[in-house]
Amino acid sequence: MKKNAFYAQSGGVTSVINATAAALILESKKHKTKIGKVFAGKNGILGALKEELIDTSKESLSAINSLKTTPGGVFGSCRVKLKSLDENKKEYMRLIDVFKAHDIGYFFYNGGNDSADTAYKVSQISKKLGYPINCIAIPKTVDNDLAVTDCCPGFGSAAKYIATSTMEASLDVASMCETSTKVFILEVMGRHAGWMAASSALARTSKNDPPHIILLPEVVFNQSKFLDEIRKCVKKNGYCVIVASEGVKNSKGKFLAESDTKDAFGHTQLGGVAPYLGSMISKKLKLKNHWAVSDYLQRSARHIASQTDLLHAEAVGIHAVKYAVKGMNGVMPVIVRGTGEKYSWKISPVSLSKIANVEKKLPKSYISGNGFDVTSKAIKYLSPLIKGEAYPKFKDGIPVTQKLKLLQVKKKLPLWKN
Amino acid sequence: MKKNAFYAQSGGVTSVINATAAALILESKKHKTKIGKVFAGKNGILGALKEELIDTSKESLSAINSLKTTPGGVFGSCRVKLKSLDENKKEYMRLIDVFKAHDIGYFFYNGGNDSADTAYKVSQISKKLGYPINCIAIPKTVDNDLAVTDCCPGFGSAAKYIATSTMEASLDVASMCETSTKVFILEVMGRHAGWMAASSALARTSKNDPPHIILLPEVVFNQSKFLDEIRKCVKKNGYCVIVASEGVKNSKGKFLAESDTKDAFGHTQLGGVAPYLGSMISKKLKLKNHWAVSDYLQRSARHIASQTDLLHAEAVGIHAVKYAVKGMNGVMPVIVRGTGEKYSWKISPVSLSKIANVEKKLPKSYISGNGFDVTSKAIKYLSPLIKGEAYPKFKDGIPVTQKLKLLQVKKKLPLWKN
Repeated sequence: MKKNAFYAQSGGVTSVINATAAALILESKKHKTKIGKVFAGKNGILGALKEELIDTSKESLSAINSLKTTPGGVFGSCRVKLKSLDENKKEYMRLIDVFKAHDIGYFFYNGGNDSADTAYKVSQISKKLGYPINCIAIPKTVDNDLAVTDCCPGFGSAAKYIATSTMEASLDVASMCETSTKVFILEVMGRHAGWMAASSALARTSKNDPPHIILLPEVVFNQSKFLDEIRKCVKKNGYCVIVASEGVKNSKGKFLAESDTKDAFGHTQLGGVAPYLGSMISKKLKLKNHWAVSDYLQRSARHIASQTDLLHAEAVGIHAVKYAVKGMNGVMPVIVRGTGEKYSWKISPVSLSKIANVEKKLPKSYISGNGFDVTSKAIKYLSPLIKGEAYPKFKDGIPVTQKLKLLQVKKKLPLWKN
Repeated sequence: MKKNAFYAQSGGVTSVINATAAALILESKKHKTKIGKVFAGKNGILGALKEELIDTSKESLSAINSLKTTPGGVFGSCRVKLKSLDENKKEYMRLIDVFKAHDIGYFFYNGGNDSADTAYKVSQISKKLGYPINCIAIPKTVDNDLAVTDCCPGFGSAAKYIATSTMEASLDVASMCETSTKVFILEVMGRHAGWMAASSALARTSKNDPPHIILLPEVVFNQSKFLDEIRKCVKKNGYCVIVASEGVKNSKGKFLAESDTKDAFGHTQLGGVAPYLGSMISKKLKLKNHWAVSDYLQRSARHIASQTDLLHAEAVGIHAVKYAVKGMNGVMPVIVRGTGEKYSWKISPVSLSKIANVEKKLPKSYISGNGFDVTSKAIKYLSPLIKGEAYPKFKDGIPVTQKLKLLQVKKKLPLWKN
């Protein structure tokens, strides 16, 4: 029986989440007997609750294809987590009303941990509330912290950006260190898991190359060891490049950036682990330092996306559709790494019960003995994920993006009031 | 008569200064009757004073060619400004000793304002101290603030990075603004001149696209007007993207984010206008905001270099050699824009007396009436400078760089003591 599909983007966006969307929309067109239209939720699950459904069938093929090279979440994303069915049945009943009104039988939810949880809850309405739905969660997060899947679409591109930027900025620092900056700090994302900080190690082509110090959220910050390490490094190399995860914590379990509100000069500290460390280095080591905070740049840098990551992002979109039309429910297409020496991967379905709300941190075997670096095992894991370039087209010096129509289908229900 | 050449990199490096070096070294090989070896100063002018001369003839052709895609300053740069001949004759006598010892008759100095000043002083030793030298300053600065030249090599690539990053991050913010970040601030370099901040306007493909607010050092910061502008913008668009120059000043002429540290030129070291503004926006407008500080990333992002900029960088290196072998002294090869509708340019020699220590700021006609944007005239000027892509080769997911031998010639003089 033919049913329409609902697709939504959720949580922090990436440079390739739109490539997943494009792949899913194009794959759906191949299953015309089972899938009618693909409606995209405006701003994620809010689009379903508010009955704000973007009709992707109104977009040209060229517009859909342009999504493959457009960062951000074109349909809008949100940070909204549904409560459990028992706690807020009203929300689920509303979803069913919207699904019924628009003949929706497929629910695709493209996000991270929280989104897998939401998708898992929605998948249960089949059994618990009797509305037939094929609910598929699709992985996406630069944090790379989803369980079961070998890696998460979005991460490889952010990792490539971080490795490249670390390499480039390090060459800059190295050239100036004799009379200028001695220490450079790059702050990267990853609040609870150090995957992004770890990926900076891929900047190296030989053992002693920068980054010299990697600060991971998995390792408790030790100020004196940290300062010692910098001192040694500057003595040896003339400079020191540090990549710090935003989520580095002290021994009391507090984020460094929140643990002290004054900087070296007694000024109020304005947040950010990089300025915090920079101030510490000025004060304690009297070393001139510079710092960068790449923030959203690292997760939207589609211009330096990883081809491997892009292929993953498209594959999970395609397989989500394949699983749905096979009648699967409550699963996620995950990336499974082959066991051979040469990197290979395939997509497999895994039950959301194994994924929702589980956070995958860097394993101990990936962290070096002194806690300031990653091991060769980590490098071996990370390395294939940033391989290959997937440049967007450029016009007038900047990447080409295409504006979509984003037409919403006519509402049939009363306004949603939470 | 055949003489050796001295080449040095000075001041803040760029993603294409090594391309200038490569072009200069390769062009020198074409003038074998006039130019012997090219010695590169280790760490800029310090290399001449300390007699630390890197023999570029020991490098393979492949190594020299690799410099075209390697950011940073491969021979080392420095922030050292020579005093005037009258104030510190000793330094100039030392330079002459080193030039004599190594048969150096050509002096190429690749830098910005301060470096043009140093080169100008060195050019005077021919007349004032009787040592024959052909001294050519070669333009380079991401700040784009050199006088006379239409633009500065290094700027176009930084501008392309900023325009692309602004566009990409804006798509990220736009997708999340309904339930998350409303204001995003990107801090860019540009101590006294707003060229880099202005270049963010190239992110737009239609009039109302981000960035919504550009803060230039040429415009006195007005907090209430600024906050009003954000309020209006968020109301209209749902979010607001701000690009702020590190050099924004208040009505008292103080940098918004003043730091107590000074660099070797006595310039105040900046950084931190973004967190300053972010904190202000949180406090006064209660709007969730994120900020990024691209710092060295913007001037070393060779992976997103502008082809136009790269061609400029190579051309000034080539013309520096041509001018020198013609017997010119105390000049700089500058970029002259053609007057036609279609962008064209050529290289011409200009006396350093017109360039040294002059700072070119954004003209008033480039700044919009409300002070928060640039005009179409500015866009017309900026647009051609970021055009064309000039990707480096990649291996294992990161740009390929080659390590040079950097062998120094044997010292012939006593150690330099300042």
